[in-house]
Amino acid sequence: MSTIGRDRLKRLARLSDGKVRRADGLQLLEGRRLVSEALTAHRVTELFVRDEAAARRYAGMEPEIPVHCIGAQDMDRLAEVRTPQDVIGIGPLPSLLGVDAILAEHRRILLLDGVQDPGNAGSLVRTGAALGLSAVLLHGPTADITSPKVLRASAGTLFRSALGRVESAGALDDALATHPHTLVLPVVHGGRSPREVRVPDAFLLALGNEGAGTSLAGDPSSALRITIPMSAGVESLNVAAACAAILGAWL
Amino acid sequence: MSTIGRDRLKRLARLSDGKVRRADGLQLLEGRRLVSEALTAHRVTELFVRDEAAARRYAGMEPEIPVHCIGAQDMDRLAEVRTPQDVIGIGPLPSLLGVDAILAEHRRILLLDGVQDPGNAGSLVRTGAALGLSAVLLHGPTADITSPKVLRASAGTLFRSALGRVESAGALDDALATHPHTLVLPVVHGGRSPREVRVPDAFLLALGNEGAGTSLAGDPSSALRITIPMSAGVESLNVAAACAAILGAWL
Repeated sequence: MSTIGRDRLKRLARLSDGKVRRADGLQLLEGRRLVSEALTAHRVTELFVRDEAAARRYAGMEPEIPVHCIGAQDMDRLAEVRTPQDVIGIGPLPSLLGVDAILAEHRRILLLDGVQDPGNAGSLVRTGAALGLSAVLLHGPTADITSPKVLRASAGTLFRSALGRVESAGALDDALATHPHTLVLPVVHGGRSPREVRVPDAFLLALGNEGAGTSLAGDPSSALRITIPMSAGVESLNVAAACAAILGAWL
Repeated sequence: MSTIGRDRLKRLARLSDGKVRRADGLQLLEGRRLVSEALTAHRVTELFVRDEAAARRYAGMEPEIPVHCIGAQDMDRLAEVRTPQDVIGIGPLPSLLGVDAILAEHRRILLLDGVQDPGNAGSLVRTGAALGLSAVLLHGPTADITSPKVLRASAGTLFRSALGRVESAGALDDALATHPHTLVLPVVHGGRSPREVRVPDAFLLALGNEGAGTSLAGDPSSALRITIPMSAGVESLNVAAACAAILGAWL
C-alpha cells in the first residue's frame, strides 16, 4: 500500500477527458467488473481503493500492482460515474493494430463504422464479444473506445477483444483482397435475410450509426448485404440490437 | 391554436412523476417520434409546440386535437429531456388487458418480468416490436411503461403493442393451461440453443433483470429453456441484446 500526491490525483481525475488520456497514455477503469477484466488482460498498472480492507485484498491478489488507499472522497473525485466505486484502476491505452494484422489473426470481426454514441459503441463490443466476435476494427468518427462511457457499456469486454483501426475505405478494400473475409453490410432494405444465407467462414460485420447504416459501400460483387426482416412500419432496430439479431441468426 | 393557463402547464410539467401520471391519467409524449407514433395509435389528446409555424402544421395535420403554442421556455419546462423538443403531446395512460385477453389475441408476446431499468424495458419493447412480437405482458416490479424514459427507449413502439399485466405466476400458469403458448425462459446455463429448437407457433418470451434472469419457474414439463451459446468467460449479454439474439435466431 502506498500514498499518492494530491497533484497526481487531480491529474488522474482528468482522465475522463480524452485529450488528457492521449497526453498521459492512460485510461481509467471504474468499478470491479472493468478492473477484473483489465487485470485478466494484464492491462492495469495501479489500483485505487477506498479503505484498508480493500487495499489488503487487492494487494494480496495482485502483489505486483501498486494499490493506493485514497478514501471515499478521493475515490468519488476520481470516478466519472456518481455511484460510489469500490475500486478504480489505471492502465495504459490500448495499442491499435492495423487491419491486415487483425484479419490475419481473426475470423469473426466487429467493424465499428462511425458509431458515435458511446453507449452504442460499448454495447456493440459487448454483444459481439458474447456472440463470437474476437476482434474490433474502428473506422471513421467512432466513439473513443478508451472513454469511461464506452468501457462501462462494454462491461469490460473491450479487454477481451483484439483492437485495430481501418485508416480508409481503400485500406479495407486492399485488406479484403488478400484475406478470405466477407464484408457483411446490414442495410435497411434490399439485403438478404440473415437466416437465409450461408454463414461466412470469416467475416467483418460492419455497423454504423443508428439509422444511417454504414458508410462503407463495399465491393458490390463481394459484400454481403443483410436485411433483418422487421415488422411493418417499425423504423429500425437500435444498432446493438441489430448486431445481436444477426449474430443470433448465425449462432 | 389555443392558450393554456400557467397552473395547468405547471401540472403537466409534473407528469414526469409517476404519481402525478396516475392521479391525472395522463402521460407526456416528448418529441416528434413519440408524438407521431402516438398520433397513429390515436393516443394524443393535446399538443404543445414552440412556435406558430409548428402550431399551424400540426393543426393542419390533426384538426381535432388542440394545439397550444407555448414558446421555447415553457416547452423546455414541460420536457424531461434537456434536448429542445419541437413538439410535446399529452395522452391518456394505456389500459392494461388481462393475460387471457392478450393470449387470446396474440401469438408472439414479450413478457417483461421485473425489468426495473427503464432503458432496458424500453429497448426490449422496441426490439420485440421490430422482430415480430405484437404484445407486451408486464409481471413483477417492472419499470413504469408510462415513464418518459421507457417511452423514449421504446422509440414509440409501445404504441404499436397490445399491453397487459400478469397479476401472479399462478394466473400465468392458468392462462398457459388454456392457451397454446409456450413459455420461453432464457437461462444462463443448461437450456437449448435457440437455433436448435423448433420455433414455437405461439410463445411468451420472458425476460427478467440483467443477469438475474426471470423469476418465473414455469412448468418444467412445458417451459422451453433457452441458452444462448456465448464465448467462454463472457458473463452475460445485456437483456435487450439477449432478446434480439433469440428472436434473430427465430426470424
